[in-house]
Amino acid sequence: MLTYSFEHKGNESLYEFLYNKIKEDILSGILKAGEKLPSKRALAKHLNISVITVENSYNQLMAEGYLYSVPKSGFYVSDISSQKPLVTIRPERVRSLPETSQTFFEDFANNSTLADTFPFATWNKLTRLTMADYANELMQRSPSGGILPLREAIADYLYQFRGILVEPEQILVGAGTEYLYNILIQLLGRDKIYAVEDPGYQKITHVYEANDVSCVHVPMDKNGVNVASLEKTEADILHISPSHHFPTGIVTPIRRRYELLQWAMQNSSRYIIEDDYDSEFRLTGKPIPTLQSIDSAGKVIYMNTFSKSLSSTIRISYMVLPKALAETYHQTLNFYACTVSNFDQYTLYQFIEKGYLEKHINRMRNYYRMQRDTILSCIKKQVHYNKVKIKEEHAGLHFLLEADTKYSDEELIKRIADKGIRASCLSEYFYDKKDAKKHTLIINYSGMEPAKIEEAVDRLFRGIFA
Amino acid sequence: MLTYSFEHKGNESLYEFLYNKIKEDILSGILKAGEKLPSKRALAKHLNISVITVENSYNQLMAEGYLYSVPKSGFYVSDISSQKPLVTIRPERVRSLPETSQTFFEDFANNSTLADTFPFATWNKLTRLTMADYANELMQRSPSGGILPLREAIADYLYQFRGILVEPEQILVGAGTEYLYNILIQLLGRDKIYAVEDPGYQKITHVYEANDVSCVHVPMDKNGVNVASLEKTEADILHISPSHHFPTGIVTPIRRRYELLQWAMQNSSRYIIEDDYDSEFRLTGKPIPTLQSIDSAGKVIYMNTFSKSLSSTIRISYMVLPKALAETYHQTLNFYACTVSNFDQYTLYQFIEKGYLEKHINRMRNYYRMQRDTILSCIKKQVHYNKVKIKEEHAGLHFLLEADTKYSDEELIKRIADKGIRASCLSEYFYDKKDAKKHTLIINYSGMEPAKIEEAVDRLFRGIFA
Repeated sequence: MLTYSFEHKGNESLYEFLYNKIKEDILSGILKAGEKLPSKRALAKHLNISVITVENSYNQLMAEGYLYSVPKSGFYVSDISSQKPLVTIRPERVRSLPETSQTFFEDFANNSTLADTFPFATWNKLTRLTMADYANELMQRSPSGGILPLREAIADYLYQFRGILVEPEQILVGAGTEYLYNILIQLLGRDKIYAVEDPGYQKITHVYEANDVSCVHVPMDKNGVNVASLEKTEADILHISPSHHFPTGIVTPIRRRYELLQWAMQNSSRYIIEDDYDSEFRLTGKPIPTLQSIDSAGKVIYMNTFSKSLSSTIRISYMVLPKALAETYHQTLNFYACTVSNFDQYTLYQFIEKGYLEKHINRMRNYYRMQRDTILSCIKKQVHYNKVKIKEEHAGLHFLLEADTKYSDEELIKRIADKGIRASCLSEYFYDKKDAKKHTLIINYSGMEPAKIEEAVDRLFRGIFA
Repeated sequence: MLTYSFEHKGNESLYEFLYNKIKEDILSGILKAGEKLPSKRALAKHLNISVITVENSYNQLMAEGYLYSVPKSGFYVSDISSQKPLVTIRPERVRSLPETSQTFFEDFANNSTLADTFPFATWNKLTRLTMADYANELMQRSPSGGILPLREAIADYLYQFRGILVEPEQILVGAGTEYLYNILIQLLGRDKIYAVEDPGYQKITHVYEANDVSCVHVPMDKNGVNVASLEKTEADILHISPSHHFPTGIVTPIRRRYELLQWAMQNSSRYIIEDDYDSEFRLTGKPIPTLQSIDSAGKVIYMNTFSKSLSSTIRISYMVLPKALAETYHQTLNFYACTVSNFDQYTLYQFIEKGYLEKHINRMRNYYRMQRDTILSCIKKQVHYNKVKIKEEHAGLHFLLEADTKYSDEELIKRIADKGIRASCLSEYFYDKKDAKKHTLIINYSGMEPAKIEEAVDRLFRGIFA
């Protein structure tokens, strides 16, 4: 009969210990397929343990398929050994990612936001209120596009601040714009050709490529995407940021906007994705009106995010679908659960509804204006100030610094890095490198520590010119 | 000269009002392309407003492309009217979704969780702690797979409770399993053929179909996916839940598991996705060991979610990639930002790390056992108890109720709904309807209000048998 010593049982329960012992014997072939096990009562007596302990062990082994029972006969060993794979490849340890090993004094390539500027006190209060006031709602499945109060709050916000008049049902809330791009590909079709701006934000290309859809790069001129070049492609979908292009800062003027809308209206499969990622942060004058607001034909898909207005780490974006597409979504992709937690949705809803978002954006606009002005005045103090040109400093959280230098862009980045400063060049954002504008640095300042600005600018200039 | 009355200005600022007036005149053609505007000084004097007001209006109109300036000459109207689309289609209002209009007394088809059981006090405390202790970390971009402390906590948890030994780098955290399926398709390839269980969780099929990948349905036998049927397909990827199949409740026995692993090892493109969605809630005996833990060849992608253990509305899931696939992910898809907010990631990290998750799961396991027992004892009290069979009640948060009835499944659902109870049938989950098991109701009890159980069971039985 099966005999096991319980001496080395350790912390396991008797039942677990017995289960493991029998399992090992089956796996090693000591107990063979078809072999009959002692009855529960007999084994319990033999091992001096309770019948219930043996029963629990047998039941677990049956649930996992190591034993089977034959009514009125008893317990038998299942036939498993013949199928057990003998391979025991031990794959290598996952190679660590090549993290940037260098630590920098400051980082002009980083567009994150500082903890000092996040409205922690308010967010904390609203999180608490959410759990107190919406306990039941928090446990109920959110509609695919997001909870209705949040979509209504976004619709109100868009109407008041962006002149966009939409119904909450047209809004889809999602965990980041990249996620929404993925959904859009499923909505618009994988057979479509997607056109993106060159230069442009490379992640957009990555998302299209990871989805195996055709992606063409259309050159920009000084007014945005060049329409003649666009016409030469077979693009169906045009993905642009007309109010403030990254990284060039170009604002697409009204005439070009109408031309782009005309392009879209020539074919029923054509749409324009308007990525309005930092429209809140035009630092001079009013925000530029959206393309969506002059689209009367249902051709513009409007996208925005709370990455810039709150924090990129909060992962809440949204898009506004033209009504016909919104219906298609509800008919075909509505099965997707909303990717933003109810907790975050209700907190953000209150943040907008109670006017905190508006206040926060106003405060941040002033803060960023100050940051920009500080950097610009530090630049003006530089000996080599006459060798640089500042461009596109009126909007968004970065500007361009064109340097009169003989160094290549790679050399520039390297020289600046040697001074402890991380920076990026406009040329990195060009798909067609032969068109790339050279000697132009992108100066992001949203995440810059105010106390480090002067020193950072000094080091930057020493990197470029010393 | 341009003359506007400021009488009806309303709440707008002077500058906004002037900007809008000039813009309207350009759009309507009153101001024509190429027409020269008065100088800022002249217009200011004429309208009796300040030069700076005119300047701001002109600048905004230039930024938006309505005006252009010629150095040392002045401001001119841009040529836009010829391109302005004349179409003014007003699309219909978005049709409201056909929401379930009927309100039910109770819902056996709902698998959400109750607010009463969510650990609000702890979650609230940890959220507050997170904002206090991790303010800087919260603002820093999360690695694509999730913040390291959370991945380490999950790795520890998996080791202790599921016998899975993995490195944190193999873990990817994402906003729900549906999102992770989307990522897996991009990782494994859109050219692959994906096999799912029949019957099975239909959303999985929907995700594959929305991604335009081939999806085949493999019939289940009493031990899980039928290997002979699987071999007949050209499937590369097998997507299963071997520890507790939804909705049948089948546990795939060890022999079948080895057979499935053998299948996967026959071709380098083959993988098994192990969806372990509710393994924490085996109510009798120990949790069933994972397929991942007996896979020595790097063929199993393990997935799990906090939907069942915390709440489905919190949207945090994760997967464990075999090391080779984890490397491919880091090389090709690492550009994706993590879809879970840093706030939620740090809160969950502390929830696991400080032992709250384990305690919560233990408490919930007892709670669900009690819920199940209450429902079963209510069923036993029914006059028609002898006409039903209860199946698969030992695991997960649902069981099956097979009824001896002449009604079709559609009739059953309708009759039960007439008593105010929502329910679903096993047959709904079959892709191949001719194999569908009939007269079997799925009884979900995770979201059921305890006080309503007795009445709900009474109504259910009246619906079936009265």
